Amino acid sequence: MRAIVCRSLGGPEVLEERSLPEPSPGPHDLLLEVLAAGLNPVDLKTRETGLGFERSFPMVLGYDVCGVVRGRGEAVEGFGEGDRVVASPSLVRDGANAEFVCVDARAAARVADHVDPIELAALPLVVIAAWEALFDRCRLRDGEVLAVLGGAGGVGHVAIQLAREKGARVVTTAGTDASIALCAELGAEEVVDHRDPTSTRRLLEACGGGADVVLDTVGGDVFEQALDVVGVDGRIATLLPGESPRLAETLFVRNASLHYEFVGVPGITGRRPESQGRILREACGLVLADRLRPVIHATFPLGDLEAAHREQETGHVHGKVVIRVGA
Amino acid sequence: MRAIVCRSLGGPEVLEERSLPEPSPGPHDLLLEVLAAGLNPVDLKTRETGLGFERSFPMVLGYDVCGVVRGRGEAVEGFGEGDRVVASPSLVRDGANAEFVCVDARAAARVADHVDPIELAALPLVVIAAWEALFDRCRLRDGEVLAVLGGAGGVGHVAIQLAREKGARVVTTAGTDASIALCAELGAEEVVDHRDPTSTRRLLEACGGGADVVLDTVGGDVFEQALDVVGVDGRIATLLPGESPRLAETLFVRNASLHYEFVGVPGITGRRPESQGRILREACGLVLADRLRPVIHATFPLGDLEAAHREQETGHVHGKVVIRVGA
Repeated sequence: MRAIVCRSLGGPEVLEERSLPEPSPGPHDLLLEVLAAGLNPVDLKTRETGLGFERSFPMVLGYDVCGVVRGRGEAVEGFGEGDRVVASPSLVRDGANAEFVCVDARAAARVADHVDPIELAALPLVVIAAWEALFDRCRLRDGEVLAVLGGAGGVGHVAIQLAREKGARVVTTAGTDASIALCAELGAEEVVDHRDPTSTRRLLEACGGGADVVLDTVGGDVFEQALDVVGVDGRIATLLPGESPRLAETLFVRNASLHYEFVGVPGITGRRPESQGRILREACGLVLADRLRPVIHATFPLGDLEAAHREQETGHVHGKVVIRVGA
Repeated sequence: MRAIVCRSLGGPEVLEERSLPEPSPGPHDLLLEVLAAGLNPVDLKTRETGLGFERSFPMVLGYDVCGVVRGRGEAVEGFGEGDRVVASPSLVRDGANAEFVCVDARAAARVADHVDPIELAALPLVVIAAWEALFDRCRLRDGEVLAVLGGAGGVGHVAIQLAREKGARVVTTAGTDASIALCAELGAEEVVDHRDPTSTRRLLEACGGGADVVLDTVGGDVFEQALDVVGVDGRIATLLPGESPRLAETLFVRNASLHYEFVGVPGITGRRPESQGRILREACGLVLADRLRPVIHATFPLGDLEAAHREQETGHVHGKVVIRVGA
């Protein structure tokens, strides 16, 4: 099959086209013919660092997929040949930047044939991350205030919509005029310009003095802002290993919680794969009901994966970059 | 009224007897005649540091009380003159090391007259801390593994019992032969000797490779042990502002959560006082049903509060030190 691989760890230039054998499904796997594959920051990090796991090369990236079932392992239930499926492939197996990919059926969701595979391929990883962070871990409730730091990115733009759907008030930060407009359009009540040197004070005001839940999608200095903004009894979820020398003293006096959300854990460890399948089924239901809209920043054909990586690296992606494979 | 006060911040020697006016109940307050007052590490820290709040002197400590209602504010419902009550007085008002104390009725619980006031006075602060940490925040479930670091102390010995009641498996650490025996007697499945240089490895083995929930009641180096022991998808609750340079990287790859449990927040901020009242009512029900047993390390009369503080400072208290006032 046709695939774009990393021939080694490195910059976008390590990506190249190869012909690889089709993967063979394990007992719980679906073999999918890939229609489209979403791109995420974790693709870039895996290409650069291997993400801390032993890797063999060539390595195929691509951790979001919409595809069609072409084979399945003997333990698979509930899926048949020709079904359209969305899933987030494991971070430690070959991904969806190829004509075929294997995914754990327990972590996958069937979807109707009439929904655009580009939109569906934009969804899995970011919607699982946002859902786990906001609902499973921070237990965001109706009427609470959520601050999304980095509201226009992949996870951020989905988090705004899921939180509004839950009845939460949402304030966000964003760093360009276009991303500020996108956050407002998706339902953020106030969008604070991250370029404004008083952005932390403005964010605190917008939150009424402290956020119930803070979602940090950016990390680094932005994690400091999460500490500034979280309120008493508040919860921070971060998608990165955020840290600060004032973390403990800040959170202790506020009786606060900190959740490190790493969406790849079930795929890596084999723990509770079905929980991500459940989230994907509910999220696809929201898309079908027009209550959740993945925003497509740009699409690229599989052969232009290197250009897609370079676009993602600008840090100015609104919503998602998606790779067209069979679609 | 008779009271033991701190005349300034400092060591146990700043405690001295004074005659003070009886406190006046605010709208939500009960005025209690004190039968007994539990002692906690937070008394020592408040005496030494003021706990970071502006203080006026003389200051009365004592953040656990069992007493009898002798007056009430106009907004109080559900309590009458002569009722026996348990509560944890606010950390920023005068406490229960006196003949009378005011407590927020919403955060208090009525108890039957026949239960020993010494046992009841041992309960409030530690049972609220353990309950909030294990159930409200870490959401400990039936069948999960809880590691209690410091199992024989005030919060630890209650946490073991509450977790066993919930159906969790409990492993603990303890640092003396007597405290090891106490943890085992209270239901810990395995008790690891903290003096053993291989205690972290032994604890990991006892947890089956990683704990679902870790309760750190000690802080400092023990917080490092919490990081070593928490498993994938695990949750740490710490009663102190624990920190470590490897916190973020350790917790991120495990998709883990960290809860800073500061029991004083409702009393300080006025937020959700009724949640602690609810916990106290449920906990008193467990005591009445012989399913929760506060362990009394020693009692002291009010006039010997200085000696009680010195005993607490040894760090070798099993369960609780309680001050007898009217009891």
